[in-house]
Amino acid sequence: MGPSVRLGLLGCGVVGSGVVRILRENAEMIATRAGGPVVLTRVAEPQCEKARALGLSDDLLADGMAVVTSPDVDVVVECIGGVGPARELATAAIQAGKSVVTPNKELIAKHGNELLALADTHAIDLRFEASVGAGIPIIRPMKEHYPADSITSVLGIVNGTTNYILTMMSGRGTPFAEALADAQAQGYAEPDPTSDISGNDAAYKLGILASIAFGRSVSVEGVSREGIERIHPRDIEAADELGYVIKLLAIGKRREDGRVEVRVHPTMVPKHHPLTAVNGVANAVFITSKYTGDVMLYGPGAGPLPTGNAILGDVIEVARNLRCGATGRVPHVCASSADVVPLDETVCGHYMRLVAPDRPGVLGAIATVLGQNGVSIDSVYQKHAEGGQAEIVWVTHPGPERNFRQAIEAIRPLDVVADIPNTIRVETTL
Amino acid sequence: MGPSVRLGLLGCGVVGSGVVRILRENAEMIATRAGGPVVLTRVAEPQCEKARALGLSDDLLADGMAVVTSPDVDVVVECIGGVGPARELATAAIQAGKSVVTPNKELIAKHGNELLALADTHAIDLRFEASVGAGIPIIRPMKEHYPADSITSVLGIVNGTTNYILTMMSGRGTPFAEALADAQAQGYAEPDPTSDISGNDAAYKLGILASIAFGRSVSVEGVSREGIERIHPRDIEAADELGYVIKLLAIGKRREDGRVEVRVHPTMVPKHHPLTAVNGVANAVFITSKYTGDVMLYGPGAGPLPTGNAILGDVIEVARNLRCGATGRVPHVCASSADVVPLDETVCGHYMRLVAPDRPGVLGAIATVLGQNGVSIDSVYQKHAEGGQAEIVWVTHPGPERNFRQAIEAIRPLDVVADIPNTIRVETTL
Repeated sequence: MGPSVRLGLLGCGVVGSGVVRILRENAEMIATRAGGPVVLTRVAEPQCEKARALGLSDDLLADGMAVVTSPDVDVVVECIGGVGPARELATAAIQAGKSVVTPNKELIAKHGNELLALADTHAIDLRFEASVGAGIPIIRPMKEHYPADSITSVLGIVNGTTNYILTMMSGRGTPFAEALADAQAQGYAEPDPTSDISGNDAAYKLGILASIAFGRSVSVEGVSREGIERIHPRDIEAADELGYVIKLLAIGKRREDGRVEVRVHPTMVPKHHPLTAVNGVANAVFITSKYTGDVMLYGPGAGPLPTGNAILGDVIEVARNLRCGATGRVPHVCASSADVVPLDETVCGHYMRLVAPDRPGVLGAIATVLGQNGVSIDSVYQKHAEGGQAEIVWVTHPGPERNFRQAIEAIRPLDVVADIPNTIRVETTL
Repeated sequence: MGPSVRLGLLGCGVVGSGVVRILRENAEMIATRAGGPVVLTRVAEPQCEKARALGLSDDLLADGMAVVTSPDVDVVVECIGGVGPARELATAAIQAGKSVVTPNKELIAKHGNELLALADTHAIDLRFEASVGAGIPIIRPMKEHYPADSITSVLGIVNGTTNYILTMMSGRGTPFAEALADAQAQGYAEPDPTSDISGNDAAYKLGILASIAFGRSVSVEGVSREGIERIHPRDIEAADELGYVIKLLAIGKRREDGRVEVRVHPTMVPKHHPLTAVNGVANAVFITSKYTGDVMLYGPGAGPLPTGNAILGDVIEVARNLRCGATGRVPHVCASSADVVPLDETVCGHYMRLVAPDRPGVLGAIATVLGQNGVSIDSVYQKHAEGGQAEIVWVTHPGPERNFRQAIEAIRPLDVVADIPNTIRVETTL
């Protein structure tokens, strides 16, 4: 058995508590596999009672900067979240020659590139397996299973809250607001669910995935996003009839010309696709590459224990590297920034649900405008007719986003159109 | 850019050709990610024309023993298959201080433990990512994502041939023999398909998975196995009506008492389970652990390019380790042998399809014998009645295998029983 590896823990919230619990319950196995004991030597937590509730001695407590610079710490585990002090402390830790493990998606999405460059300079490890898909092995496989391959697309269901809500809406026809309230009651959604619902959380994760997949750094500002607020049970019903399931997908694609598409939005996914079987709070990432073809990694996208395990997997990897003097052995390959395709130029099929007076000439008028804008119709059907109004559902062939948006702007003011309650992108190529 | 890593390739068959192709097409990216060029310096292939067909120069050719002991070789890639010379050459390579990468499931299942011990002694890497699930990241996640966790079960669809046949039989009611012929015509089944059909191939893979999952070596002889030869379209239809899909599962479970169950057999899997969506030649492994819960890894289970990519992922990992002088950094933790639960003592639900004269008293007579043997009935229904004979389908609650087998032996000779065409285990706990 080798010498101990000493951890400095920043933050004893939900995730930090998972790390502490597993470390305590599984100490012996962890020591065997890490090649020596893994012990907690310093903890920073402004609310001391949180640390005490985990049974941590007050002797371990120090302020954040003292933890990351302590000579008694080999590896810093950052569980504060957000950018604020996390960025400053991670930077100081790396500069002090410590390896850093973090589940912090916002930090890595916004500042991963600068931190990875610093990590390379100091030849330490910066690992963030838990930042996407919490308990699912994703980051390590993408970095270590695919180095000889070329990943062409990565599609993810990477937000459990929205997937839970959409699953509720699909199974029982529950309206959005009610499904959201249920998710909050179950603890699957925050009291302020904006970041999840709007696609922001998924956009952070997509930035991380796309940067690794395509080997060029994708800035989170470059990820276009649209949330699930406007999805109506009527849309889900229509999707079902057309052979699709609606999922909030994080989509990264590398085009032939080297540019990348990165977008988060509700997507109609063909029913035969494995991603449609990912329900509730589960997450999954679907990777397509030149040599391997299609791979899907599925599992729990949240929770203190799955997240804690992923963090400790990283810690043990770092411990093995420390034992061999081999930190920094996996290079970070983002030498340049990705050239992101503007949303207008992305290519998708589109679904449009439209309400119109139930009288002759309506279909023709709309179809004409679509045609004038270069939008080709795949299918159209009239779904309901109530009180003199008909609901007409259109699905277009894949085409540039710009053409479809222009067509919508031209259709909306037509006399024959009462309302266009929703449009949703369709992934016909899956 | 660091110095070159020099490969010695054993075997230029289907898999070896995939390695050569990717290495040639993707040389630049591989060099970037490996920290230096990866070059082929020696090749052993008794049929020279195979090597020539890959565009390899005759200068590279040498006999196997010369390749593995050559001072010009850092890493040996063993693509011969089987035990025969592969074992001897892998042993010699390790003894000569070379790291070894192999997709050879039979070699690892039968002799992995002795080779891993030798690898530890010589502090080199022995990697075998492609040995299970070819292109799917499985071995590395199991070794590197779960070191802090305790895996309690691992369930795999790890044989593409049988999964293709069962998928054909399910979708179209094709009889077994016809589906097998189709698989052979498509190149998904060997001319002699025995090893796949009988569950032997899956048993090798389960031995490897269970050894890693439970940290104790599982000998391949300890894996009980049953093939898919006796599955009839009638069974698939009955399973469907009962809410199940029939899959050839490789099942490894760790019991509370530390003993393990390892068995390969056709299994009725509840329809809601993600494994039922794994169709055709796709493979998947479903891992359940104490902290992480359920994870599924899905992808291509065969093919020269997915396999070649997985092999090169291992090679690049070894190259990174060589650069840091850190080979042997991931320890092999099977310090002892697993205590395998005899099949008789394993616990399962059972499905039984039985043909009997269509007259009063039959159900009662059979139910009585089941009860006498301690087998509890979950459901029973009479499916067809033709020519005075009825087909009765039974599903039992989970119970010891021994009780069920004893009941079957007592039921078979009963006057009221014409035939028991099939019995299939049911995984009710999924």
